[in-house]
Amino acid sequence: MSILPIVQILGFLLILLSFMMTLPVILLAFNETPDWLAFVKSSLICFVIGILSLLVTGRRKYALKQRQMFMLTVSAWIIIPMFSSLPLLWSDLNLTITDAFFESISGVTTTGSTVLAGLDDMADDILLWRSLLQWMGGIGIIGMAVAILPFLRIGGMRLFATESSEWSEKVVPRTNSLARSLVVVYMGITLACILTYWALGMSFFDAMNHSFTTVSTGGYSTSDSSMGQFDSLGILFASTLFMSIGGMPFFLFVRFVHGQHQPLFRDQQVRFFLVLLVMVAAMLTLYRVVMAGADPLATFVHALFNVTSVVTTTGYASTDYSLWGPFAVVIFLFITFVGGCSGSTAGGMKIFRFQLSILLLREQVRRLIHPHAVFARHYNGRVISDDIVASSVAFSFIFLATLAVATAILGALGLDLVTSLSGALTALTNVGPGLGDIIGPAGNFESLPDTAKWVLMSTMILGRLELLSVFVMFSRDFWRN
Amino acid sequence: MSILPIVQILGFLLILLSFMMTLPVILLAFNETPDWLAFVKSSLICFVIGILSLLVTGRRKYALKQRQMFMLTVSAWIIIPMFSSLPLLWSDLNLTITDAFFESISGVTTTGSTVLAGLDDMADDILLWRSLLQWMGGIGIIGMAVAILPFLRIGGMRLFATESSEWSEKVVPRTNSLARSLVVVYMGITLACILTYWALGMSFFDAMNHSFTTVSTGGYSTSDSSMGQFDSLGILFASTLFMSIGGMPFFLFVRFVHGQHQPLFRDQQVRFFLVLLVMVAAMLTLYRVVMAGADPLATFVHALFNVTSVVTTTGYASTDYSLWGPFAVVIFLFITFVGGCSGSTAGGMKIFRFQLSILLLREQVRRLIHPHAVFARHYNGRVISDDIVASSVAFSFIFLATLAVATAILGALGLDLVTSLSGALTALTNVGPGLGDIIGPAGNFESLPDTAKWVLMSTMILGRLELLSVFVMFSRDFWRN
Repeated sequence: MSILPIVQILGFLLILLSFMMTLPVILLAFNETPDWLAFVKSSLICFVIGILSLLVTGRRKYALKQRQMFMLTVSAWIIIPMFSSLPLLWSDLNLTITDAFFESISGVTTTGSTVLAGLDDMADDILLWRSLLQWMGGIGIIGMAVAILPFLRIGGMRLFATESSEWSEKVVPRTNSLARSLVVVYMGITLACILTYWALGMSFFDAMNHSFTTVSTGGYSTSDSSMGQFDSLGILFASTLFMSIGGMPFFLFVRFVHGQHQPLFRDQQVRFFLVLLVMVAAMLTLYRVVMAGADPLATFVHALFNVTSVVTTTGYASTDYSLWGPFAVVIFLFITFVGGCSGSTAGGMKIFRFQLSILLLREQVRRLIHPHAVFARHYNGRVISDDIVASSVAFSFIFLATLAVATAILGALGLDLVTSLSGALTALTNVGPGLGDIIGPAGNFESLPDTAKWVLMSTMILGRLELLSVFVMFSRDFWRN
Repeated sequence: MSILPIVQILGFLLILLSFMMTLPVILLAFNETPDWLAFVKSSLICFVIGILSLLVTGRRKYALKQRQMFMLTVSAWIIIPMFSSLPLLWSDLNLTITDAFFESISGVTTTGSTVLAGLDDMADDILLWRSLLQWMGGIGIIGMAVAILPFLRIGGMRLFATESSEWSEKVVPRTNSLARSLVVVYMGITLACILTYWALGMSFFDAMNHSFTTVSTGGYSTSDSSMGQFDSLGILFASTLFMSIGGMPFFLFVRFVHGQHQPLFRDQQVRFFLVLLVMVAAMLTLYRVVMAGADPLATFVHALFNVTSVVTTTGYASTDYSLWGPFAVVIFLFITFVGGCSGSTAGGMKIFRFQLSILLLREQVRRLIHPHAVFARHYNGRVISDDIVASSVAFSFIFLATLAVATAILGALGLDLVTSLSGALTALTNVGPGLGDIIGPAGNFESLPDTAKWVLMSTMILGRLELLSVFVMFSRDFWRN
């Protein structure tokens, strides 16, 4: 198996990255950019290595084989964050390699867990770079979900293709045009978000940063108090809206833009997702109004915002919701599992897997009563094959097993149960904040031991790559012949 | 749908129960039985109501229809514990109805969570009744698993029948003879356990109580310090052995007794179960030896005992293992999910469901590499149909969903995250102790609010009945025509 095609694409990605690295300096040309040298140096390194890679591999176009696609996917999600961490490492922050890499991986995977405290006083260029990391990560995820994973038979996109043949190799050109449309839609939504935030009172700089991390469902902010810094129900509500958009399947927006409105509104996954957000928020509101006599409207806006933030795996907080009482803590723990829709920038187990399970459960209950009846499973208007069920089971199992192993390792490193469990979970689902005093919505990941940080980084990458794309490389079959 | 056949069988069970209620008085004829009147009164009530039920329904033999079987199963597991709680209610303990019923349900479902503190000074007849509750529950579970659930297509027994036709209605006589053999084997193992405990230094009374609660994987003890009271590695090891036996499929013992030794030793579920126990115990031992410089042999015996106690869902403790550090706490949380083998007295998700998931995961990884290959799934030498996969998914999903709902309710009642989560989990898997300061291995369930106790009781029954047998009654189809 030749690694040349992999090197070629990585080289291309590094050159793109080198341009991205100039953005914090360019966009802030009239502001202070104390770390401009770090960005210029990093950008040059990426550019040189990128060009060298392209020189080695030449301009020839390769058709990637399936195994090369696996290797490309996994290596890209390690190498890009590695290079992206350089500006952080060389900045005035004096970060260790572990912390710089953690911040970068957490950014690119759109997790949003941070090891940095004192964001409010941080240099603008660093803040902007963190937001850009997540924005890049977001488009990377959508691109991967549309252009790569379906060929590898991983993830839920197979369920949502218009025709089952859509992901065959013949339609690569169609996929490419889809990818271009997705980038345009992604940029359009980002722009709309910037303008909305700006109109609602954020500074342009804050609006830019927060829309980069809202649309990508990333969750990095420019303040330690996250979205709580603005103290505005309007901003919270707008943010809720754009986070939900980030958690929906982006190809439905492409179709929407092309005049096909029905698929978006009729999509079973989208409907379930929206109903879930409102219902959980309503439940939390009721609880807080009854228990603490809180103001219903403000409570609902805050509840909806924080629930949406966790379910879309963004990870903003408007307040320390872990102080809302044990019921809220339990609810936030469980919704951390859920995740957004397949084909979005969100992580987690994904809505459709829960819907498939509910489908199977209903079928099973009916089968118990009518043992000899034959049932056809339908989801979003198509028949669900046993193959898709098996694939969903395999994912759920490896997800929970990985969660257990990561939690156990964190426990062995001395972290308490709640920190270990919620830390492993929040990394695996790419949400961001955990629970408990250390890594809860009011805390950060700075004080964790270095080994724990590396465990969390690996878990973030595993989660981002839908686990199986990584684990397949651990199988003997993968390396045979 | 006539409820006469249900009343008939419940009447029969109540008469059996009335005889069981005389046992604490008879067995302790030469000891103090301060509560003898409570037992006699309860026994008489059960007897009278049982006889009345039989008079109403007559001696006619009914063939139960499927829906009647569901109703019988669920009502039996509510009514028997209800009547069984009478001696506790009328004893000198002055229990509330909630506490008496909790102790009885926790007993009969072989969960083993207790609301009673001060067991060491408690009257012998009460202690013996608690042990008998679990012993009855144990044989009830095995009987249900063999004689009822397979007809209802619930649980894993279908996977383990020798022929797929074995559970058709024609073989009821064969099932009856199997049930008789199972009772004999159960009694034989109990007797062997009594003698072993006695030989190892327990008083005969302690040996009797603990073998009743060991073989049934129940976990009630005669001391607040559970098995820790004996301070004997020999007893811990013997108990480990008999708990493991209680966690294995009992019909394999019947075949063993009939000279078929291979099925027991070749059973994939049994092997995985035993390997799991030893591996987890070895891991905990290594951790404690490295971290705390503990004595390897004693540590291993204690680790193996407590791991076996949780995995078999017995719930004894030899010491407060939650003090072994966060790694141990995490491990004990996760092994609470596992449960024993299908067809045993153990609860939990059951070993074979994890094995099925691993099977599907392996298949999926191989399918990713060889997309066009065809795979046949084999387990224990037979092909696994998609129907069985769907049934396993449905179970796992409803299990986790029930866990989430029960945890959320406990959280809403004000219990902290660890208590809510581990409490709901330990009830659903019928293990017994939870984690944390309140309901951990060194605590008990006495101080929980009454509502929380009722939630836990419902959860215990749901877990014991493999969830689906209860939830099927909530479906509209069940009550139609």
